[in-house]
Amino acid sequence: MTENRFFLKDAKEHLGKTVEVKGWVYNKRSSGAIIFLQVRDGTGFIQATVVKNEVGSEVFQKASEATLESSIIVEGILREEPRSPEGFEITVKKITLVDVVKDEYPIGKKDHGPDFLLSNRHLWIRSKRQWAILRIRSRIFQAVEDFYQKEKFTRFDTPIITPNACEGTTTLFELDYFGQKAYLSQSGQLYLEAAIASLGRVYDFEPVFRAEKSKTKRHLTEFWMTNCEMAFCDLEENIKVQEELIMYLIKELLEFCQQELKIIERDLAPLKNIKAPFPRLSYDQCLKKLHELGSDIKEGEDLGNDDETILMNHYKQPLFVTHYPSEVKAFYMKKDPKNPGRVLCADLMAPEGYGEIIGGSQREDNFEVLKKAMEKNKLSLKDYGWYLDLRKYGSVTHSGFGLGIERFIAWVCKLEHVRETIPFPRTIYRMSP
Amino acid sequence: MTENRFFLKDAKEHLGKTVEVKGWVYNKRSSGAIIFLQVRDGTGFIQATVVKNEVGSEVFQKASEATLESSIIVEGILREEPRSPEGFEITVKKITLVDVVKDEYPIGKKDHGPDFLLSNRHLWIRSKRQWAILRIRSRIFQAVEDFYQKEKFTRFDTPIITPNACEGTTTLFELDYFGQKAYLSQSGQLYLEAAIASLGRVYDFEPVFRAEKSKTKRHLTEFWMTNCEMAFCDLEENIKVQEELIMYLIKELLEFCQQELKIIERDLAPLKNIKAPFPRLSYDQCLKKLHELGSDIKEGEDLGNDDETILMNHYKQPLFVTHYPSEVKAFYMKKDPKNPGRVLCADLMAPEGYGEIIGGSQREDNFEVLKKAMEKNKLSLKDYGWYLDLRKYGSVTHSGFGLGIERFIAWVCKLEHVRETIPFPRTIYRMSP
Repeated sequence: MTENRFFLKDAKEHLGKTVEVKGWVYNKRSSGAIIFLQVRDGTGFIQATVVKNEVGSEVFQKASEATLESSIIVEGILREEPRSPEGFEITVKKITLVDVVKDEYPIGKKDHGPDFLLSNRHLWIRSKRQWAILRIRSRIFQAVEDFYQKEKFTRFDTPIITPNACEGTTTLFELDYFGQKAYLSQSGQLYLEAAIASLGRVYDFEPVFRAEKSKTKRHLTEFWMTNCEMAFCDLEENIKVQEELIMYLIKELLEFCQQELKIIERDLAPLKNIKAPFPRLSYDQCLKKLHELGSDIKEGEDLGNDDETILMNHYKQPLFVTHYPSEVKAFYMKKDPKNPGRVLCADLMAPEGYGEIIGGSQREDNFEVLKKAMEKNKLSLKDYGWYLDLRKYGSVTHSGFGLGIERFIAWVCKLEHVRETIPFPRTIYRMSP
Repeated sequence: MTENRFFLKDAKEHLGKTVEVKGWVYNKRSSGAIIFLQVRDGTGFIQATVVKNEVGSEVFQKASEATLESSIIVEGILREEPRSPEGFEITVKKITLVDVVKDEYPIGKKDHGPDFLLSNRHLWIRSKRQWAILRIRSRIFQAVEDFYQKEKFTRFDTPIITPNACEGTTTLFELDYFGQKAYLSQSGQLYLEAAIASLGRVYDFEPVFRAEKSKTKRHLTEFWMTNCEMAFCDLEENIKVQEELIMYLIKELLEFCQQELKIIERDLAPLKNIKAPFPRLSYDQCLKKLHELGSDIKEGEDLGNDDETILMNHYKQPLFVTHYPSEVKAFYMKKDPKNPGRVLCADLMAPEGYGEIIGGSQREDNFEVLKKAMEKNKLSLKDYGWYLDLRKYGSVTHSGFGLGIERFIAWVCKLEHVRETIPFPRTIYRMSP
């Protein structure tokens, strides 16, 4: 980096040395002639101990004036301190008050309702728990990129502004594009299918948009999805790649996010026990299981949120549900040659009650079959002609899937609601700040 | 990976062995009893030689039937062949025709106009040149992520759907958000500024949107930008981070994209000669230089596209232009204490005539000064109150910048137009396929 700035993340390497921490006061207590400032610098947390007898009255005065969330620079000696949660503390020698907060900081120790916290999301993200979740998110993003690059995928950024819909037309955000109607992308999948004939194996990782009026704990109107698409790949291989991706992400999480997982008090045992290959149920088997578990889902219906919850409360491993009826799945999925009423698809459900995190399938590669499916779904050949072209010029067996990253994070962090997994969540009721 | 599939990228390691290539025929020639199939598999290219005497008439017949862009599986022995561009070829033993293209492939050897190619972008991306550019793009994305993670930045995904504008209000795409007006983000910067008090150093990397009616070779309506923001960081340090990022990206490009740069015939000497620190001109010095070069730009005006071109035709290194008049820059930039008419900003211009690729600045950190700037710019305190809060609760010196990735790629690939740097370009006239 441009400077040899000390960061709290590297505290272990600086024990016994004089360090300078540039950060914010997130907590404070005093005991007569000692003030304990809890300081964070973005990479970690530390207790800075200010002893009046040692620092003199001027520095001690500054410590007294440092209110919650004031920005501050503390200089002092970094020591081991087993009693502090981080295992270290700083014996302060010098303090620079950068900006002292005069008003009371809005987010206090008392309980705030979700609406208040979301309205103050720009401040709420400073809390230790939110910090930890956002750090985990960042690491998961990095791990997704690493996985795909290591497996010889090429990144292929699919467009957001599109003239047509991929996943049903009722949940599209409409846009005025210089006088034409356009829509925000719900998935880059169709475009990735075009890319495989150039690049073989491709992925995207970007925000997608669904104007769903769902108020569940699993829905955001703007969320991040990573899709991949593979040439010369069938359903079976597609499932294996998903297993490898999930196992890789969990491994990276457990290796690099120990501090963060501790802060959010995630029970690690269920994550450590995840093992591929994951169990599978066909749609028909799944319905039977759901009926046993008390669901009233009917033959031919898609799984609802509640079905996913009761099903996945029952599983300790992620579960593939495969071979859905073609009616409840998208037009582009390949019909099962052994059972044309079913498609060659697999959804991955997360355990501990979390439900669907991945949707994937083998794609229809036959020109005539796809054309008929498009006509049946009233998709215009003017808009989708390019997609049909892909079955005209060198069609191949191909498959892919999309992982909803917020749902994945909600599961691995064991969060109540997906809204805490993204910096500024967008829901039906909220698009600010 | 799930299988030990052979990929052409790893050809060197399989010399003398029997390999199976699953891909597409991108070229073909024959010489009596020999057919040469040029095959690509997404990771590379190879010549597959089919000798009638050796393979027999059935296999040879299949090779004859393999039209351009047909999907195919060829099996044979991988041999060194110095005369082929890749240095290898396959002596074919077996051919499986997966899907034979019956119609003539629309993109032939003759010259096509850009409109035809863009309308067939889903096929155009298969051409070797487009493949190479898209591979370079993928590598640059990976390098950006690697740089930020190695430098202890946390990824922080800023929202796309926003209630307010960051960079001027005339170029916003408007959206109907469940009955409310919303806008597509033009930059995540303001949100990143909120994140620094939680995470210290942050970045985003996502699509942004500008409804600009510009028809220049430098404009897309949807493009990818990576912003970063750093707490306790001034203009000088901000400039150094930019230099390090650019140098890192060029190093990675030269190291990992040799084949791709060769395909697009990029002259590597100008890239190899790039060295930090980059030269700098203040706005005032820049105006003087522009007048020498024949521009009629007036004092107080922003640099136009033509100004950037004539200026950067003159430079072999990237150039920082600093300290612009506050009137032509955004409200959030910090005023120069030594010259309040100027702001503490720096734009980075790419050489070889390419112009601006980065815009960056130190941000206004004083509550009162920022509030006045917002009032002057008629920004509502209702919409921007959260942004002003950041100067109320622990304000710090902070800076950041945004790199337009398509402009960067256009420069390092020396392309005429940014539209070739993104899979499916969106311009004022085009949002399909």
